[in-house]
Amino acid sequence: MPDSLPTTSQPQPQAVTVAIVGASGYSGEELVRLLLNHPRVELTAVTSRQYAGQTVAQIFPRFASHPRSRTLRFSEPNPDLLARAARFVFLALPHGVAAEFAIPLLAAGCTVIDLSADFRLRNPATYAEFYNHDHPAPDLLAQAVYGLPEVYRDQIRSASLIASPGCYPTSILLPTLPLLRAGLIKPSGIIADSLSGVSGAGRKAEVDYLFCECNESLRAYGVPKHRHLSEIEEQLTLAAGQPVTIQFTPHLVPVNRGILSTLYLAPAEPFHDSTQADSLARRISECYRAAYANEPFVRLLEGKALPDTKNVVGTNLVEIAWRLDPRTGRLLVFSAEDNILKGASGQAVQSLNVACGFPETTGLL
Amino acid sequence: MPDSLPTTSQPQPQAVTVAIVGASGYSGEELVRLLLNHPRVELTAVTSRQYAGQTVAQIFPRFASHPRSRTLRFSEPNPDLLARAARFVFLALPHGVAAEFAIPLLAAGCTVIDLSADFRLRNPATYAEFYNHDHPAPDLLAQAVYGLPEVYRDQIRSASLIASPGCYPTSILLPTLPLLRAGLIKPSGIIADSLSGVSGAGRKAEVDYLFCECNESLRAYGVPKHRHLSEIEEQLTLAAGQPVTIQFTPHLVPVNRGILSTLYLAPAEPFHDSTQADSLARRISECYRAAYANEPFVRLLEGKALPDTKNVVGTNLVEIAWRLDPRTGRLLVFSAEDNILKGASGQAVQSLNVACGFPETTGLL
Amino acid sequence: MPDSLPTTSQPQPQAVTVAIVGASGYSGEELVRLLLNHPRVELTAVTSRQYAGQTVAQIFPRFASHPRSRTLRFSEPNPDLLARAARFVFLALPHGVAAEFAIPLLAAGCTVIDLSADFRLRNPATYAEFYNHDHPAPDLLAQAVYGLPEVYRDQIRSASLIASPGCYPTSILLPTLPLLRAGLIKPSGIIADSLSGVSGAGRKAEVDYLFCECNESLRAYGVPKHRHLSEIEEQLTLAAGQPVTIQFTPHLVPVNRGILSTLYLAPAEPFHDSTQADSLARRISECYRAAYANEPFVRLLEGKALPDTKNVVGTNLVEIAWRLDPRTGRLLVFSAEDNILKGASGQAVQSLNVACGFPETTGLL
Amino acid sequence: MPDSLPTTSQPQPQAVTVAIVGASGYSGEELVRLLLNHPRVELTAVTSRQYAGQTVAQIFPRFASHPRSRTLRFSEPNPDLLARAARFVFLALPHGVAAEFAIPLLAAGCTVIDLSADFRLRNPATYAEFYNHDHPAPDLLAQAVYGLPEVYRDQIRSASLIASPGCYPTSILLPTLPLLRAGLIKPSGIIADSLSGVSGAGRKAEVDYLFCECNESLRAYGVPKHRHLSEIEEQLTLAAGQPVTIQFTPHLVPVNRGILSTLYLAPAEPFHDSTQADSLARRISECYRAAYANEPFVRLLEGKALPDTKNVVGTNLVEIAWRLDPRTGRLLVFSAEDNILKGASGQAVQSLNVACGFPETTGLL
Repeated sequence: MPDSLPTTSQPQPQAVTVAIVGASGYSGEELVRLLLNHPRVELTAVTSRQYAGQTVAQIFPRFASHPRSRTLRFSEPNPDLLARAARFVFLALPHGVAAEFAIPLLAAGCTVIDLSADFRLRNPATYAEFYNHDHPAPDLLAQAVYGLPEVYRDQIRSASLIASPGCYPTSILLPTLPLLRAGLIKPSGIIADSLSGVSGAGRKAEVDYLFCECNESLRAYGVPKHRHLSEIEEQLTLAAGQPVTIQFTPHLVPVNRGILSTLYLAPAEPFHDSTQADSLARRISECYRAAYANEPFVRLLEGKALPDTKNVVGTNLVEIAWRLDPRTGRLLVFSAEDNILKGASGQAVQSLNVACGFPETTGLL
Repeated sequence: MPDSLPTTSQPQPQAVTVAIVGASGYSGEELVRLLLNHPRVELTAVTSRQYAGQTVAQIFPRFASHPRSRTLRFSEPNPDLLARAARFVFLALPHGVAAEFAIPLLAAGCTVIDLSADFRLRNPATYAEFYNHDHPAPDLLAQAVYGLPEVYRDQIRSASLIASPGCYPTSILLPTLPLLRAGLIKPSGIIADSLSGVSGAGRKAEVDYLFCECNESLRAYGVPKHRHLSEIEEQLTLAAGQPVTIQFTPHLVPVNRGILSTLYLAPAEPFHDSTQADSLARRISECYRAAYANEPFVRLLEGKALPDTKNVVGTNLVEIAWRLDPRTGRLLVFSAEDNILKGASGQAVQSLNVACGFPETTGLL
Repeated sequence: MPDSLPTTSQPQPQAVTVAIVGASGYSGEELVRLLLNHPRVELTAVTSRQYAGQTVAQIFPRFASHPRSRTLRFSEPNPDLLARAARFVFLALPHGVAAEFAIPLLAAGCTVIDLSADFRLRNPATYAEFYNHDHPAPDLLAQAVYGLPEVYRDQIRSASLIASPGCYPTSILLPTLPLLRAGLIKPSGIIADSLSGVSGAGRKAEVDYLFCECNESLRAYGVPKHRHLSEIEEQLTLAAGQPVTIQFTPHLVPVNRGILSTLYLAPAEPFHDSTQADSLARRISECYRAAYANEPFVRLLEGKALPDTKNVVGTNLVEIAWRLDPRTGRLLVFSAEDNILKGASGQAVQSLNVACGFPETTGLL
Repeated sequence: MPDSLPTTSQPQPQAVTVAIVGASGYSGEELVRLLLNHPRVELTAVTSRQYAGQTVAQIFPRFASHPRSRTLRFSEPNPDLLARAARFVFLALPHGVAAEFAIPLLAAGCTVIDLSADFRLRNPATYAEFYNHDHPAPDLLAQAVYGLPEVYRDQIRSASLIASPGCYPTSILLPTLPLLRAGLIKPSGIIADSLSGVSGAGRKAEVDYLFCECNESLRAYGVPKHRHLSEIEEQLTLAAGQPVTIQFTPHLVPVNRGILSTLYLAPAEPFHDSTQADSLARRISECYRAAYANEPFVRLLEGKALPDTKNVVGTNLVEIAWRLDPRTGRLLVFSAEDNILKGASGQAVQSLNVACGFPETTGLL
């Protein structure tokens, strides 16, 4: 680089120290990208057993322009060293393993932002039911905050353990929670039909995710009881004040990234004529505006537009649109997000911004 | 070709003469492929205003190995000449235009197999509601047969006007009709959530269907009142013996071909325990087997397998699987088909086979 | 199937018995498809250690409409049983393993059509150089015929061991051999730059071939000494009558199927003006027509058209076009094929047709 | 946005004013993205006849999180107003049209960064030959600087008219120029074989670029005399000090973005043994390091790695790797870039950074 002026993307005086544990998967790679470029963050450690000793630029060549990528090396994951290196630690690890790291890091005073499922559920019995093993750290559940800033912003500010939501749950909860809280929809009979890109399956060498097995393929999977149901239903139950059970059908479609969710909802009061429909539409519109008009990462579509993942991939945005169907009496809601950004790493950085008191879009535009 | 022995794919003595009107789109191209290779068919005419005068091999080079493709030329569409050239005429034309050709061809004694929407509905008022113009030939509706061989095989045998079903309707009706007829599901509350490849939009030069606008894009469209609703609901109403209104949500996803439909159904009788669930499962299984066990183009999946469009693209098959969800009390049904084959041209050739008394898989394996 | 008339795709009296060894990969699956539908073939055995005991329809659901797919079961590969079951045996096995099966099958009197590299080279030293192990059956090399029907048709007719060419070699040799034999191009300085779909890598669970690693990715690989060089150069050397060394660069691109080769050739005599260019163009055109005008699977493009894999995928065709560049004095030749059909299984069936005296397009249109 | 602290991506005191003319295509859209987020830029105007009056957020919803996207509106292109609004003006217009805007903008004192071909060539006769019309502003050619910062950095610093290079030329010139200048390769016989994603064709509603016509398609086009040859050859001629004519073959492949170029070069001195090969390899390596080791956007690959577009898409990087082939005596060089970033808009912003004295990676990491 011929010039020597400091760039604005270099850490500034008020930078916080941050580490990433398990940075070799798709979410971990995206965290590296976001945090290398975050103007208020100093990325001090990234761990990967597989890549220990190599630089970030060697493993993720697309970050090679960033000077820090050529000096920062992957290390073996060691909680003691991590705790000394960083004030905030992101965990991009499989469920079960994440908790093992969270315990010593919290004890050492770090704030943990966990992208796994380990701390998303309040009820360890639900965890055991959906993840097929006992919860590895039930004592920590009480202090965990569900890291959906649009809903839990105040709690995230002071949290030491942030459980970043799953990709599907984010795409389903954001369009549903305001309506449920406002009593505009019935808590029963909710259906969420979702499409996901293949990065959602992770960087795993399995025949099912080979190019020739996914390209030109459309398929449902994980029905009728996908693991993400557990956190979706727990959050809906909290919002509704009564137990909520939903139908959730994920599909695998040939895109790298993106989730599109189509939600089938029943208005709390039926609309039998156009006057009722207009009134209901106005209340739905007002409900969404009240919830999201000032949210930088929620885009409420108006007019004829419907969400399209290509508008949100590469961003931390969720697009939401809705339609009342007078023929069936249902409310249809559509949402689109990038499963690796708003559905994982982008949302985790958004929580970091909240926790640090930074403007929430810092490093995410 | 060095050898001069006749190949078995050449027309045989008992061949029927067949013409295709409007053979330049994706469905028309596929009809050409199927009929060139059909061992009981002599393809005598293909029409296209755009390509008149050129050979099939020039316009569709992938058929160039077939000797007939190098002698058969596209002609201007002329009903008189068509009626002299062919006993069966396939119409692969836009709605409205198809009827204009059907009238003289039927008058001249041809059997017409229409791939457009013009003769799928029994009620011309429904046609006007969904297609925004008066029906162009309401007098013909009474003689039209809905060309779904698994349902209307007997009527197709003697029909002079066969209205080949739409792509979405085929994928939705085949899994739904047997259950509805058997009274196993409620006729109300049906939801069909479908994904379609881009060939469904036709070979139209519009920005929305450019590679870069579709690749890495997922989006719903045509909600809440897509045109195909009209024929789906009419057929469901006939099967249920009472008016049926459904929810239908089509999505555009980046594959060339294929439709995957996910259906949300309510069992007529709820299942509250595993005994009831087992009993219901047995009745559903028996219902599907009674309907489709001997159908060559319906594949009932068992065990853990779920439909995948890559298993049916390039074939005339529909795959069907189902799951009872004890958590929600719903029945989920999944189907996969090739939108251009079982969803259009393959099914039309299947109807031809029925009408001619040929084995139904002739030319379709 | 409601009708009981025999379909023409059922085996006919003069059918030959055929077996496939190693039928679980992409080439094996395509062989199953072609041979199930071949009107002169009775497919008597398919082997797969992985799938032994299961029916073809269970493993390859897209063939489920074919009655034979529901009765034919995969078996363990046993040369004795195979020799009793079939007159012709296709080997779709890794190199090295194929030869182990060829030995006993040939001894038992079968004709072997091998899709591996084991018998493509006449010189076992070249095999050892490129495949990193000694040739497993050097005594058989003398009787092997290179299974490129457009070149070795006469020898294939009476061959007992047919070595079906590789996918890249087919796409490079067919456009090059006639020019080389006619002395129209120099045998030195040939460059072949090829693009291949991902099915060429086989159905292997490796991270490099995951959807997210291939989609939206373009990369060269295997440079500068890919294994296929050995058979390309051996065939070019035979045609030129002098040693030929070429440059070959394969690339992996995100399509399921297809190979596009761009060849950079030096005309034997330079063309300095338009008269010389016209004369050369005429000789090239005549050379290609003499070689291929009557070949059912070679399509010589004229006018402005250039080969496009989408025109040949799903067919056994090779498209060829060429351009003289007066600015550089070079001859550019382009070819397109389906790597699994003309590049593998289709070509193997074409050789079967030749060996059996069937019309060469039988089962391949 | 709940917080009111200023974000670092907001314009800073030393911000320069910038406008974009013709911001509705793929390159224009990417310019908007880069310049909205550039910490030293205030984007004051974006023009589009088609979208005049609408906000950037309405037309490009993926930028909706950025506050400026909701206030900045597209305007009709008016040189007077543009000159008052901006110190730097980017032209993302068709060739021919770009020059019409450049004339008054330069006269008004703006610095123009033109992404079209209008000012890339020094010789107006070459322009007329390749673009089929007379050059619209030949008097301006003398002051234009070819906007390849790695080569013309010093001239860009003081340029008023910067002609940003084409996508293919960038991918071919960066790997070739250092070798040519160092006399390591012959200036004759160069072949460039390139693959491009479909965004290179622009957002044009043409059948050839529909999803179903590009997906699963591989094809060459524009041979043998693509327009980009003109600027490639002019730059190579300048570097070689003698006329250079090259072979250039572009191919269209189904990715949204990315160019992969494979170059076939002849070393100036042949290498007949491993000592000579080692010596030559050392000189090539040193040549590339001298040219690019300190360049932030050129990544020289070492070891076994070869360029892959997925490593550079979304970045302003070019990856370069090379191989000596002892069998053919050739030098193979491979490069990968994002055609819309380093191949267009990213490189244009890089030139802006140079012209403004900003660190060159500002806004591009």
